[in-house]
Amino acid sequence: MNKIFPVLPSGMKDYGPKEVLERNYIVDIIRKYFVAYGFEPIETSAIEKTDILTKKYGEEANKLIFNILNSGDFLQKVPPESFGNFQELQKYISQKALRYDLTVPLARYISANRDKHTLPFKRYQIQSVWRADRPQKGRLREFLQCDVDIIGTKSIVAEVELIQMSINILQDLGIKGYKIKINHRKIVNSLIYAMDEYNNAIFITTVLDKIDKTGLDKAVKALGNKGIKNIPLLLEILNYKGNNIEKIEFISSKLVDIKENLEGTDSIKKILKYIEYTDINYDSIGVDFSMVRGLSYYTGTILEIIIDNHNIGSIGGGGRYDNMASDFGFNVSGVGIAFGLDRIWNVMQEQNILPKQLANTTKMLVCNFDCEVIEMIINLTSRLRALGLCVEMCYTTATLKKQLEYANKKNIPFVVLMGEKEADIKSFILKNMKNGSQEILKLNCLENIVQYVKEGNI
Amino acid sequence: MNKIFPVLPSGMKDYGPKEVLERNYIVDIIRKYFVAYGFEPIETSAIEKTDILTKKYGEEANKLIFNILNSGDFLQKVPPESFGNFQELQKYISQKALRYDLTVPLARYISANRDKHTLPFKRYQIQSVWRADRPQKGRLREFLQCDVDIIGTKSIVAEVELIQMSINILQDLGIKGYKIKINHRKIVNSLIYAMDEYNNAIFITTVLDKIDKTGLDKAVKALGNKGIKNIPLLLEILNYKGNNIEKIEFISSKLVDIKENLEGTDSIKKILKYIEYTDINYDSIGVDFSMVRGLSYYTGTILEIIIDNHNIGSIGGGGRYDNMASDFGFNVSGVGIAFGLDRIWNVMQEQNILPKQLANTTKMLVCNFDCEVIEMIINLTSRLRALGLCVEMCYTTATLKKQLEYANKKNIPFVVLMGEKEADIKSFILKNMKNGSQEILKLNCLENIVQYVKEGNI
Repeated sequence: MNKIFPVLPSGMKDYGPKEVLERNYIVDIIRKYFVAYGFEPIETSAIEKTDILTKKYGEEANKLIFNILNSGDFLQKVPPESFGNFQELQKYISQKALRYDLTVPLARYISANRDKHTLPFKRYQIQSVWRADRPQKGRLREFLQCDVDIIGTKSIVAEVELIQMSINILQDLGIKGYKIKINHRKIVNSLIYAMDEYNNAIFITTVLDKIDKTGLDKAVKALGNKGIKNIPLLLEILNYKGNNIEKIEFISSKLVDIKENLEGTDSIKKILKYIEYTDINYDSIGVDFSMVRGLSYYTGTILEIIIDNHNIGSIGGGGRYDNMASDFGFNVSGVGIAFGLDRIWNVMQEQNILPKQLANTTKMLVCNFDCEVIEMIINLTSRLRALGLCVEMCYTTATLKKQLEYANKKNIPFVVLMGEKEADIKSFILKNMKNGSQEILKLNCLENIVQYVKEGNI
Repeated sequence: MNKIFPVLPSGMKDYGPKEVLERNYIVDIIRKYFVAYGFEPIETSAIEKTDILTKKYGEEANKLIFNILNSGDFLQKVPPESFGNFQELQKYISQKALRYDLTVPLARYISANRDKHTLPFKRYQIQSVWRADRPQKGRLREFLQCDVDIIGTKSIVAEVELIQMSINILQDLGIKGYKIKINHRKIVNSLIYAMDEYNNAIFITTVLDKIDKTGLDKAVKALGNKGIKNIPLLLEILNYKGNNIEKIEFISSKLVDIKENLEGTDSIKKILKYIEYTDINYDSIGVDFSMVRGLSYYTGTILEIIIDNHNIGSIGGGGRYDNMASDFGFNVSGVGIAFGLDRIWNVMQEQNILPKQLANTTKMLVCNFDCEVIEMIINLTSRLRALGLCVEMCYTTATLKKQLEYANKKNIPFVVLMGEKEADIKSFILKNMKNGSQEILKLNCLENIVQYVKEGNI
């Protein structure tokens, strides 16, 4: 057989031990708060029916979905004329695809299981999603999403809890310079209405969505090129400096008599007021009327978590959607937020705030020199493990130097040496790899020794 | 838009809250022992290059791989003549696929990262795999595998550790009637050699592999139909009753002068001898010369975990493979074992040994009646959470009956009631949902109250 290169498809990535432990550390903290706020876990299958995924996302997003070829002879029922066009052919040869986010699977799940769950249903879901995006630095085609959603209530208290919980998580992770941006779809809509540009709503929303990356000047130019007229009103509102309440009052004074705007600003004001009664830092929340979060399904509040001086985009975001499951004939309002593990991990690496000690789990390495005493070595290792210590045993009788090297490379703090001499007097040598010291210890004192090692005292 | 049905593709499954918690409980125990034995985690991408997956598995298994359609216009570079044959066309329109197991990804990973890791490399990997098997009861197309492998040592001590660890896990899970079956590929080969049927080796192995399901009689019939001659020798060995050592001595007496057999039986004898020096129950290990574990890559020891009186097949298995990464030009011996989460979960459901209390995480529900005191309710909820309690707050001012129903359905043991009357005197009512008792408590004693609730004393 020819040798093949051990490479991954583009946009895919493996995670080594240190990386997995760092990522699990982050996920464990996120999950801790999901649980503390009463969210329950669900997991859905990676593969969904294509028509369910494409119905929600529309044509643009369809390009980003990984489609799965039918099994067996997938050409069996293909009409010959459809070979001319890939989109036509695809309908016949592929009816399944990998999930693109965790929101559509949630909508499908809750619609299928509406009788099983008490509303409001508070669910969390921590699973991978796949997007056939153009691979680029910091953007993989497989990434882990941590989603929480509250389904079946219109109460604004749900938004307050999501913001409070997000800040609990960010603080516990030790992330510096985070900011929760807040806006409301009804305010965005009112602004476009006031500009008298409802026909260009999608275009304006798309431009606003990219302001983070393009800057305001380029956005204004793009709007001008399209022939959008009332740009001064937009600029006046986006350039206004003030605190959150002042911003809301300013936009209200500009968009008077628009009922939708009043609903949006009232919601935001209420959220900000309620947050004052929680224990979180009010300063980390910022009203931002340019933030729209894509063309997606949001109909109410929109939330986004960003990091100051960090050009990676948001590390999380969400909002309220009134019709999340309407495709399935289930009308229910929901609000949720999603944390992107990969971006949070990236920020924590850059801020150098990941714990250093995660990988150091094995506490002792039992060396193996001499086949004559291997039974005693196996027995000793077994007894140490039974006492709750993470222990490794060397498999082969390599030189002492090699065995100690293994301990050093794996950062194992203690090494046990037992040859015939020690075995004869029912003892072993315990070597401290940090300071090189060693002492002879008795096999019948294992419990005390394990206790000392666990406490790091020896 | 037309309503669509919220259904999954066949062979796929969602997991609700109780199911996820039960499965996580099992995975956490498995992972605990992986860590205690010094294994380190890796995670690989769900999507691999098709040529890497198919090289290892061969044509039969290829049918079970989920292939991913190329993105965009996948017909662009297809020569017209290949439309006639799906296998020909597939080469042009699909070069990626979902992983089928965790062993090929490991071989690829360790080959690509051979300089980063000290050998022996002890890795664990807990991830989903996908197989386009015919869907049937108890067999899903997506399932979670928990794999451990030791790469880069030929020492038989590695096998001893895997057996010991497996039994630690099975005992901790509380599974009854488990048995670790052990055999050796070299013994299987020697037996076929002694039957003088080396040309029919694959056929005989396939028949042996299915004895669990077909029974011995059908197997004998199948061998006879194929014209296999020396069936009496095979039957004599498989029907022999004795303990492990007696079985090994019996087969040795029948297959004298076959060097390969001696190597196989020596290995098994050594493993059994070493196991006597560990703390595990020797009786749960059984030599079984009919066990071959497929036609796969094993070259040495073979292991399988089965449950008495349970027709689900094995719940785990593994073995030693000397050429695991040779396709990538990396020659290294490895040994590993994989646990199938879905089957373990199934067995634990049938044996009724899953903990009952897993889902009960929220300890208090703070009710919400009156908008006048909502700020105080938000503040109280926030303070309770800051004291480390899992607390939910009702989002809307539904009737008390409905709010208490929610607490009951979610199994929340305590409910907090605070209306204007209580708020005025800085108090709240704590209701015990188990016995219905309630008492008025002061807001300034929260710490003591939380302590009591945590201890379950109130």
